[in-house]
Amino acid sequence: MNSFYYYNPTKLVFGTDAVSKFTEYLPKDVNKLLLHYGGGSIKRSGLYDEIMNILKEKDIEVVELSGVTPNPKLSLVREGIKICKEENVDFILAVGGGSVIDSSKAIAAGVCTEDDIWDLFIEGREISDALPIGVILTIPASGSESSDATIISNEETKEKRGLENDLLRPEFAILNPELTLSLPERQTFAGIVDILSHVMERYFTNTKDVELTDDLCEATMRTVISNGYKLVKDPKDYGARAEIMLSGTMAHSGILGLGRQEDWASHRIGHEITALYGTTHGVTLSIILPAWMKYVYKTNIDRFARFAKKVFGIEDSSKTQEEIALLGIERFESFLKDINMPCRLEEEGIPYDKFQLMAEKCAGTGTVGRFMKINKDAVIEILELAK
Amino acid sequence: MNSFYYYNPTKLVFGTDAVSKFTEYLPKDVNKLLLHYGGGSIKRSGLYDEIMNILKEKDIEVVELSGVTPNPKLSLVREGIKICKEENVDFILAVGGGSVIDSSKAIAAGVCTEDDIWDLFIEGREISDALPIGVILTIPASGSESSDATIISNEETKEKRGLENDLLRPEFAILNPELTLSLPERQTFAGIVDILSHVMERYFTNTKDVELTDDLCEATMRTVISNGYKLVKDPKDYGARAEIMLSGTMAHSGILGLGRQEDWASHRIGHEITALYGTTHGVTLSIILPAWMKYVYKTNIDRFARFAKKVFGIEDSSKTQEEIALLGIERFESFLKDINMPCRLEEEGIPYDKFQLMAEKCAGTGTVGRFMKINKDAVIEILELAK
Repeated sequence: MNSFYYYNPTKLVFGTDAVSKFTEYLPKDVNKLLLHYGGGSIKRSGLYDEIMNILKEKDIEVVELSGVTPNPKLSLVREGIKICKEENVDFILAVGGGSVIDSSKAIAAGVCTEDDIWDLFIEGREISDALPIGVILTIPASGSESSDATIISNEETKEKRGLENDLLRPEFAILNPELTLSLPERQTFAGIVDILSHVMERYFTNTKDVELTDDLCEATMRTVISNGYKLVKDPKDYGARAEIMLSGTMAHSGILGLGRQEDWASHRIGHEITALYGTTHGVTLSIILPAWMKYVYKTNIDRFARFAKKVFGIEDSSKTQEEIALLGIERFESFLKDINMPCRLEEEGIPYDKFQLMAEKCAGTGTVGRFMKINKDAVIEILELAK
Repeated sequence: MNSFYYYNPTKLVFGTDAVSKFTEYLPKDVNKLLLHYGGGSIKRSGLYDEIMNILKEKDIEVVELSGVTPNPKLSLVREGIKICKEENVDFILAVGGGSVIDSSKAIAAGVCTEDDIWDLFIEGREISDALPIGVILTIPASGSESSDATIISNEETKEKRGLENDLLRPEFAILNPELTLSLPERQTFAGIVDILSHVMERYFTNTKDVELTDDLCEATMRTVISNGYKLVKDPKDYGARAEIMLSGTMAHSGILGLGRQEDWASHRIGHEITALYGTTHGVTLSIILPAWMKYVYKTNIDRFARFAKKVFGIEDSSKTQEEIALLGIERFESFLKDINMPCRLEEEGIPYDKFQLMAEKCAGTGTVGRFMKINKDAVIEILELAK
């Protein structure tokens, strides 16, 4: 087990009555908040009205910024920073999924610096302050509701970059599984792949003596997969929605990576697909993860065999460790198909002519990933495996 | 899954170099701290000198209060409160195991009230403020290093009572498994039982749809048991010490109980044994847990059968669920014997003549526990099963 530092002060408020309580968790001195959200779905569902009524009752002034899209855009982040500075906003309330939360985090960091926010992303600079933010979660996927990270897309340069800092962990996350009962199928299952990927990026490690977190990772993957199947059968299954929501927060809270070297190559490759084609994040992972697995499994066959055994229950004493490892990857692909997620680039209409460009943007002259170091050529090979 | 609120802001600093960094996590305005510890073991190990040198370098004034015993005493808590008030102490550094941490928490709460601290324990009153505390952990067991709870023994009334509040969660916990390599056998394994008990008090529930936390609980129990066996073979096994230390913190952090109704009857009964006979906390649990299991398992045979299957890997299609459930309890007892922990009152020389008194103090005219409500008569029956 490696040394680690862990700090996660996000207050989790979970249950069907969670939204009604959110103002209890606002800092006492909040005068004006930015309500940041996507499109009309929170208006159609009534959530917008509920929130506005609560804020009105509490005499908290509200400035609104809607229009967050999947793969949240730098231009809107800049607009949010401008509004917050001009209006002296002292809190950001993110109502939505990972894109809204990530956009809020970038705004929160940008308000507290004189520099252009994109410079911080590009230079990986430490931030020293950020506005506090709170989350009312409507899509379980990103885990951003309690994570220290934000990922923003620069639509001009077609780059997608991340920033990490404990200052970006939300003050609170309101988790009401009921809000997810009517999620469209694609959002539900792309979210589930995103959640699984957050576990897998931590699970596939070469760090020794990480028995507890290995077992916690496997527990989380099993839960996500079994409840994914339940939601295929019945999208209105509250119990399954609750398991997925809690799993999503756990998966990216940081707990599952304690003391482990993490990977993150699949995310980096997926980001390049999104940057060029606008593909949904969870969809890129559904395509890249199996390809990545096929490319890297020989690095540590025992780990992939363990994955097969512990997550999918594959036991066959007539098979070699390698055969079991490969069966595990196959079963993972089957799961993705069973939840109607694509496993190949062509299923999403992604052409094969920009592998070189994506590989260069992703790995440059270096490498990505740590389970196995993936250089530019290896990125191309992984993309080939995703054909 | 039930509604829940969860907040755990303790910074975890884990690894062999963790102690050297602890002042990084002190609040900036600390001028004078109370160094609270037990006896001579931190002096013999060199830890005391290391801490004092670091504090001297940082020009932080230190007041010392040693003498914390297992089942920390109210009299010393009162002394600590007096010292902190007189000396204007603004931070408490707990160096030790659960007793030292719990004593520190009680002092921290007592400093911020004009009332007698014991009144807060007896009346279960909400505290509104507490001094911040930090922990350098030397015994993995109580999980108090990141929990919201403290348990104190009143030596005059022979009562043992707890207080819970998020204000009691430490600012930081320094977790260096090396500090535990030379722990005496009894402390090591009583600690392991305490850790397991914190999972079990959460695991045995009748709450439905708690698949994720069920699986996380089982993962933690498996890890603690397998590493317990490793430490029987080799107490110097750093990897196993690391797993136990991290498991101890996880077990009582609150994560494993999210959305679950918890039990805690075994703890309540164990406390009465300690209050009368001074028995080590983990030892009381080693005696009471198997007896409690035998008394309550029929309430929910499926849960006990699941425990047997998932934690001990018992699979036997020729057996009924009840037979499997009973086998699981048997295997748990075997584990306790394998780590040289007692399972019967007589092994610790505890007489049988005060069952009535213990039952009255424990359950009064009400009940304890929630997996099964245990009244006074049931407490006596459980004590009978521990004969």
